[in-house]
Formats: sequence, C-alpha cells, structure tokens
Amino acid sequence: MKNILIAPNAYKGALDASKAADAIEQGLILGMLNGSSKKVPIADGGDGSLSVISHYLGATLHTKRVTGPLGKPVAAQWGFNESTKTAVIELAEASGIRLLRKEELSAWETTTYGTGELIREAVAKGAKTIYLTIGGSATVDGALGILDALGTIFYTENEQLIDPGARDMEHITRIDISSIPEAIRQANLIILCDVTNPLLGDEGAASVFAPQKGALVTDVSKFEKGFENLASLIKKDFGKQVGDLKHGGAAGGVSAILHGVLGAKLIAGGEQILEWADFNTHLKWADVVITGEGRIDHQTQYGKGPGLVAMKAKEAGKFVIGLSGFVEPDDLTFGNFDVILSLSNKPDSLENAMSQTAVNLKRLGYQLGKLLDS
Amino acid sequence: MKNILIAPNAYKGALDASKAADAIEQGLILGMLNGSSKKVPIADGGDGSLSVISHYLGATLHTKRVTGPLGKPVAAQWGFNESTKTAVIELAEASGIRLLRKEELSAWETTTYGTGELIREAVAKGAKTIYLTIGGSATVDGALGILDALGTIFYTENEQLIDPGARDMEHITRIDISSIPEAIRQANLIILCDVTNPLLGDEGAASVFAPQKGALVTDVSKFEKGFENLASLIKKDFGKQVGDLKHGGAAGGVSAILHGVLGAKLIAGGEQILEWADFNTHLKWADVVITGEGRIDHQTQYGKGPGLVAMKAKEAGKFVIGLSGFVEPDDLTFGNFDVILSLSNKPDSLENAMSQTAVNLKRLGYQLGKLLDS
Repeated sequence: MKNILIAPNAYKGALDASKAADAIEQGLILGMLNGSSKKVPIADGGDGSLSVISHYLGATLHTKRVTGPLGKPVAAQWGFNESTKTAVIELAEASGIRLLRKEELSAWETTTYGTGELIREAVAKGAKTIYLTIGGSATVDGALGILDALGTIFYTENEQLIDPGARDMEHITRIDISSIPEAIRQANLIILCDVTNPLLGDEGAASVFAPQKGALVTDVSKFEKGFENLASLIKKDFGKQVGDLKHGGAAGGVSAILHGVLGAKLIAGGEQILEWADFNTHLKWADVVITGEGRIDHQTQYGKGPGLVAMKAKEAGKFVIGLSGFVEPDDLTFGNFDVILSLSNKPDSLENAMSQTAVNLKRLGYQLGKLLDS
Repeated sequence: MKNILIAPNAYKGALDASKAADAIEQGLILGMLNGSSKKVPIADGGDGSLSVISHYLGATLHTKRVTGPLGKPVAAQWGFNESTKTAVIELAEASGIRLLRKEELSAWETTTYGTGELIREAVAKGAKTIYLTIGGSATVDGALGILDALGTIFYTENEQLIDPGARDMEHITRIDISSIPEAIRQANLIILCDVTNPLLGDEGAASVFAPQKGALVTDVSKFEKGFENLASLIKKDFGKQVGDLKHGGAAGGVSAILHGVLGAKLIAGGEQILEWADFNTHLKWADVVITGEGRIDHQTQYGKGPGLVAMKAKEAGKFVIGLSGFVEPDDLTFGNFDVILSLSNKPDSLENAMSQTAVNLKRLGYQLGKLLDS
C-alpha cells in the first residue's frame, strides 16, 4: 500500500503538466490494486508554466492578440484572478521560441514587445501583482521591446529618439520611463526565473543564450557590449547594479533590465510554484514521487522543475521516479532520481513519439502501478 | 527480498539469449539491494536456438562451409556433444532468411540443401541423435534440398531424374531414399518446431509461410499443389499421412516431409528447451520472472518462447515481466504478462535501437531492481 505523488512538469510541445499528471494517474489506477495517488502538476518558469500557475493562483485564462517575436500578430494567453488582482504572464506566449520555425530564429530581429502589450493589458484590467515567467523566449533584446510597449522613450547620441531593437542596446544613451503609466510603474512585477545565469560575463545572457536563439558565435561580443551599455546606464540613472545579479541573464537579459528599470523582483520560479502547489505537505504524505518532463538530463538538477521535485523528495527519503522522453541508456540514474524511465514504446520518429506522450505516460503509470504493487 | 528468474529469448538480429540474460542481470545486481537472480536463457526452435540448446546439451559449436539458401556458400555453425553423440543443427544457419537481403527473398529459388549438408556432416562425425531447429527459414522447398543433400534420388514422369527445387514439388513422381547412407537413415532425427501449422490448407505452409518468404500471393496455390503432390506420394510410398500433421508446415514443409520420408519426430521446440533448462525447478524458486524478445505481441502467447515462459510462470502464480523492443502504447498488457516494458530509451532509428539492445536491457534490469526493491 503506497502513496504516490504525481508531480510532472509539462512535456514541452507535447502535453501540459496537468494532462501529463492525469495520464500517469489513469495508468496507475489501472495497474495498482493497493495504493493512493495525488496529482501536483509543476512548472519552473519555463515554457508551459502559465497553465500550472494559473491553476494554483485561481487565475482565469484570457487570450489577447499581440505582437509576435518577429512582428506578426499572435494570440497569446495570460491568466488573471480578479479578486486578488493577480495576473500571470508567460513571456513565451507572445515572444517564445516555440512561435518560430527553426530557420526564423533571429537574435537581432526578435522582440519582447508583445509581452509588454500583455503587461499593459493586465494592468488595464486591474492587475496589481504580475507574475511573469520568462522561460522559452526567442529573444535577446534586453527587455527593450517590453519597455517600449509600456511607454518608455529611448534616446541615442544627440538625444535622437529611437524605436529600439536588440541592435540598439549598445547605442542607447538614455532610458526615459516617465511616460510609462503610473499604474504600470506601481504594479508589483515579479519575475519567475528558470535559470540563474547573470546578465554579463562567460555565464551571461550573450555567451550562453544568444547562440541558442540564432545569434552567430561571432556576434556574441556585440550582444555583450549592448548588455554592458544597458547595465552601466542603469547603474548611472537608476542606481542599480544589474550586471552580475543572480537570474539576471534569463530570457536574453529581460530579468536584469526589468529589475533595473522597473524594480521587478527576480525569484526562482520552480521554488515559488512548488510553494503555491503546497508541495511540501503533499510530499510528507507520499512514499513514492513521480516527476518528469520531455528530457531529464544532467542539467535537470540545476533548478529545473523535476530536478527540484527530485531533490526535495530525496531529502525527505522518498523513492523518486523520473519519466523522460529521452534517456541515455548508460545513464542508469543521476541526481536525486532512483530510476529514470523512458517514454518511448518503440524505435520511432521524434514527431510520432511526441504525439504518443499521453498514452505512453498512461502505460508507464500502469507499469509502475504493477511493479510498485508486486 | 525477491528471487528473480531471468529467462529471455534471443533478441533477433541484436543479441543472443545468453548475453541478454547477462545484461539484465548486470543491471539487476546494480539496482537491487535485496534479492537474488538466476539466468535461464531460452529458445523455442526459432532463430538463435542453436547456442541456447548447445549450452544445455553440452554441445560444442563447429563451423562448416555449406550451400546457402541461394547457392552461395555460407559458414554455418552447428553443435555436437561427442560423448552423447548428439548434434544440434539450426536450419537458419545454412538456409535462413537472415542470410538474404530483402530483395533476394525468393520462395521458388531458395533451398534447404545446406541444412542437408550439415546433417551429413553431423552423422559423419558420429551423431546418433540430431536435434534440428527449423525457425527462421528462407525456404519453401518441402525439404527437397535437405533430402537431395542426403542422397535421395527424385524422379518425374517417365522416370526422369531431376535435381529438385521448389518448382519441382508438384512434378515429382517418386522419391528414392535407398542411396541415403545407412548411418543417416538410422540417426534419430528430432525436429524442434516453433509453429504448429500443418503442411496443407488455409493454415498450411503455402498459405501462411510462402508469402513471408517472397512468394507472390498468386503463387500460393502452386506451392499448395506441390505440397499436395508430396503428401500423396508419401502416403503411397511411405505409408504416412503428413498433410494435416501438427507442426508439419514449419519451415515450408520441412518437418512434414522429413517426418514422412525419414521418420523424423516433430516436437514443440519451446517446451523441449524449457525441459532441458530445468525451467520448472527454477520457476519454483522464483518470485518474479523476466522474459523477453525483440517483439512481444499478441502472437507471443501461441507457443513462442517468452509466451511459454509467461504461461508457466503465471500458472505458478509468479509476477511476469516482458522486455520487448516494441510495445504498442495502448496495449497495457496481454497474455500472461503483468507488464511489458519497452527497451527504447528515446525516439530513434531501428538500427540504432538494435545496436543498444544490451545496454538498454541492463538499464531495464537496473530499473526493475530498484522498483521491485522499493
């Protein structure tokens, strides 16, 4: 008789966290004669966090047509709880890499403007607190798009006004936020970060993230110069040191710059979401914890949702199972996982495999039910 | 504290049964703190049976250059225990479908001649008992190649001598075995069959197996006519009724014809091999039984090795685990299996997946050790 806590992340591009938890539980119930289960879908501020957070904060999802990462309009969802006046915005909804085909990736051209439009919309609807998740971005624009959409005015040399993009980061000489509406400046903006990288340096936004978003390796130093310029402007005009701030490099500098210019608070997304989910209480009840996402690998233990779940579960002495779309066959296990099972049911294409995510999770749930019960 | 019996079949084209058992056990030992394991590699008369049977019968493997299925020479292995004078011959070694590329398949042209050469060799070395496994054949020649190699003389109308192939089955008017050496005729020939299909009819060798070996559907009736002719000749000249004999259709009629002409005994391969392996004794000791092969599917329960293992294990009330290269994701389980786990570690090509068979079995062994121990 075992108590099984089902705490998966979303399977990116395939299945959201809540549906993943449902599928695993369906299988478990079919396979397990003795035992109980509870579902606690999780997220870490990465892609797919919106629905999980909205669930825990009682926010209703709305859709708004905003500017996509390359300027074409996109229909972006965001969450709002009217009674607590709390909004949930996922940057990837308006400015995410999932909105682009691979050949469209363009670190110089993509913009976070649409995310700014979502923030404006949330405040217009009455939001006082805004949780912004910034994983899965297509952008390296140092939040200039967001700030632009909110009403910021940017100047370059000789007080020239510009309509800013990533290429302008190194030329901006002044950031004027006096035209941003008061309600926006007063809003409590909290950024849920999924990485800890700083804005500048070898582990910074330019070096680590720009190439993932289509930048040439030879352009990294130009992005770095842009970020250096923004950091020194912010130091001078806003009195904030943002270059080596923890989490500052997330989403191509969005978190550092919004902290510097608007006073946004940067927090670790995974920890916060587990707190909302009352994870620790559920964990006490559990004997076995099942988590997972599209790919559990050696990076997973560094702040990713399933890594955090596994760490807390292992600290509490629980048996920890990871369900991953990919498993290196000679990685018997790692991190805090006791076992990491593969979702694959046969040699197959990635596309087919992804389309089978729910049924494979159900199958694994069934098998685990049987095996844990045996 | 669990006793785990590891009884896999070969993973066809990827790993033999004994290496599969080793890989699973390596993983189990790494994963399982409390528990014991025993290895009993199995086979059912299909492809890959030679090494398993030779192991249990204490036969040493020899290699002989013989005629391949399309006439080109092949190096075929066979097993011999000199003290018991028992030989083990796998038809697929000399006449197997695995020796041909897909485009070479040819039901009319392929011959079992090389298998006859192996039988001759075994008797020449002193074999008194010959176990012949006939799964995985490329042939539909009604054993004419084997009989030819042993010294049989075939006649058609007007007492014409012929050098027989599958096309001649319907024209043969007399089978003269008087030139087969006495030692061969005296040898105890026992055929380990992996299917129960008869020689003739809708479930017979022509209807079911000829198309798998490259025959056009429109040629099935010509093969059937050939088998009918051989069956009536055997009835007339050897006094044996072979048309509806159980197992008679195996390997394109090899078992029915060798029974009719040489008095070969036909037995169910899977059952016999489990007996040699002393499976029932090991089964009593076990709590959990792990079996598997390249593909466990709904056919597996009809006499295939892992199906037989699962049946016996389930009858004895054991927990039964199948490890299969392919699992239909919505087939949670079937037959006598409690769970059927997939070997796949990620979306991958068949070729890559097959090359990872051993490491994936080790990984599954590890995971099962952990889960059964938890």
